[in-house]
Amino acid sequence: MSLLICIPDSMQPQSLCSALQSLDSGLKIEIGSENVHNQDEVEFAVVWKHPEGLLRNYPNLKAISSYGHGADALLADKQLPAGVPLVRLMDTTMAKWMSEYLLTVVLLQRRQLLEYAKNPEFSAWGTAVCHSHPGNQIGILGLGYLGLAAAKVFLLMDFKVSGWSRRKKQVKEVESFSGKKGFSAMLKQTDYLINLLPHTTETRDLLNIGTLSQLKRGAYLINVGRGQTLVDEDLIALLDGGQLSGACLDVFRTEPLPKEHPFRKHKNILITPHNSSATPAESVAPQILENYRRAVSGRQLLNTVDLEHGY
Amino acid sequence: MSLLICIPDSMQPQSLCSALQSLDSGLKIEIGSENVHNQDEVEFAVVWKHPEGLLRNYPNLKAISSYGHGADALLADKQLPAGVPLVRLMDTTMAKWMSEYLLTVVLLQRRQLLEYAKNPEFSAWGTAVCHSHPGNQIGILGLGYLGLAAAKVFLLMDFKVSGWSRRKKQVKEVESFSGKKGFSAMLKQTDYLINLLPHTTETRDLLNIGTLSQLKRGAYLINVGRGQTLVDEDLIALLDGGQLSGACLDVFRTEPLPKEHPFRKHKNILITPHNSSATPAESVAPQILENYRRAVSGRQLLNTVDLEHGY
Repeated sequence: MSLLICIPDSMQPQSLCSALQSLDSGLKIEIGSENVHNQDEVEFAVVWKHPEGLLRNYPNLKAISSYGHGADALLADKQLPAGVPLVRLMDTTMAKWMSEYLLTVVLLQRRQLLEYAKNPEFSAWGTAVCHSHPGNQIGILGLGYLGLAAAKVFLLMDFKVSGWSRRKKQVKEVESFSGKKGFSAMLKQTDYLINLLPHTTETRDLLNIGTLSQLKRGAYLINVGRGQTLVDEDLIALLDGGQLSGACLDVFRTEPLPKEHPFRKHKNILITPHNSSATPAESVAPQILENYRRAVSGRQLLNTVDLEHGY
Repeated sequence: MSLLICIPDSMQPQSLCSALQSLDSGLKIEIGSENVHNQDEVEFAVVWKHPEGLLRNYPNLKAISSYGHGADALLADKQLPAGVPLVRLMDTTMAKWMSEYLLTVVLLQRRQLLEYAKNPEFSAWGTAVCHSHPGNQIGILGLGYLGLAAAKVFLLMDFKVSGWSRRKKQVKEVESFSGKKGFSAMLKQTDYLINLLPHTTETRDLLNIGTLSQLKRGAYLINVGRGQTLVDEDLIALLDGGQLSGACLDVFRTEPLPKEHPFRKHKNILITPHNSSATPAESVAPQILENYRRAVSGRQLLNTVDLEHGY
């Protein structure tokens, strides 16, 4: 039996291989989609943006793991082998990096430091602290593993936090919303909207002119979920109209973001190259190994993907 | 008896006056250095950058309060009335704003977001989180009221924190240093150096090529103490030589910072207009009133300035 790693070179498959083998030196690992000689032996696959249909080549596959928090790249394959369960990663380091990024962006906007960085010849010399606006209400779309971790960090830093999720959640000190009415209710009180929702048929185009215009005037948007959730031109219209004060975007409909995309040069948009968080091989290796062992011995898997809801 | 407020218009003396009178409607307040008709009545003065010698005009002055955390602007007056005790402000809101600024700057550097903001046409599309360097050791110069508050915030955010102060302090989870040897020892392990020291004869020019070059290679400097502590040209030499990766400066030898100063356009320096924190009238009014009452009734004052050490 063996474990197949099929992830892009940029995600360093060799690092994952080493991390797994340092935990279990007897583990047989195959890397890449080609040159897998003993296809019958592969019982577990770790994949990210794998070639469509690839996973049908392994008749004894017992589980497939996304090599990330999201499952959308995995589910994009319309030829997944039927009946093989899917799992995804939930990792404290990934959550910590994400929370750090979100806090950085919110504070950066709150203290207006980009303005000084972009205009170092500024002349106004203040005796007042520069706050973009007095509000400190964070609204998090998606109260899953990453959303809850972020909520905790913002609470530590004395922000007010609310969160919206498909199913209503009870989280200490977080005002929880769900459903369509709850979505509007949360938007109306939000100064900083953070999107951490997965890409599903329900979230596609969810952040559009109709929803985003319900935010408090001057609100700030951070998208670290998926680009498909945001309607690009609606964001630009809301920024240009002054309804939103700015946006920080880490995910896009097309990645890398094309050079000519208007997000690139908009004065109120900060873009980053999908690096708000990442998958740290050493940190996630234990849970991949655990799911591998559970899969080959027929036990219940961790962090399974809910196919009905698509994440 | 009355209380004199002599602070710049930019610090909004009327706001302080209103805040004090809302606490004690019977309080007699004079604003400004001119038109004070009953100089004999003034028993307490709140000042910031007041005219040299002004305070000698009030023969019954029982205490003088700086309208800020620092006492250096007050002590710059070489004609202060002899024997009148000096006090300064220590305020939770001021400390919160300062800590927020410091955390913002450290995170901004750590996540390299300014690079993306300045070069929105970047093409590298990563699958790794961009950290400026792996170190997360904060070194705080000055473990007073503001330094301790900042230490607490960095500890909450999982940074390692050390601090240096004139007298060695015992602070939970903070590695404390003092003295000349302690100064070097702390610098050597520091990734982010935060200067919160007051401006005194001992701190003048303390951050120079000899001391700053002891920092870890690639370290980052934040100066929110006083401009006189830093030797400007030494900082530039260390940045240009690559010993330091960058600096964020909120205080300067001359303020406002002259337009032609090389700090303005240095690619690795972020400058802000002395607004890392500020004096919030409503928040500080109770402690000013308390010291006023203590002063007129001859009781011990709060937050007195140590004339021997100059802060």
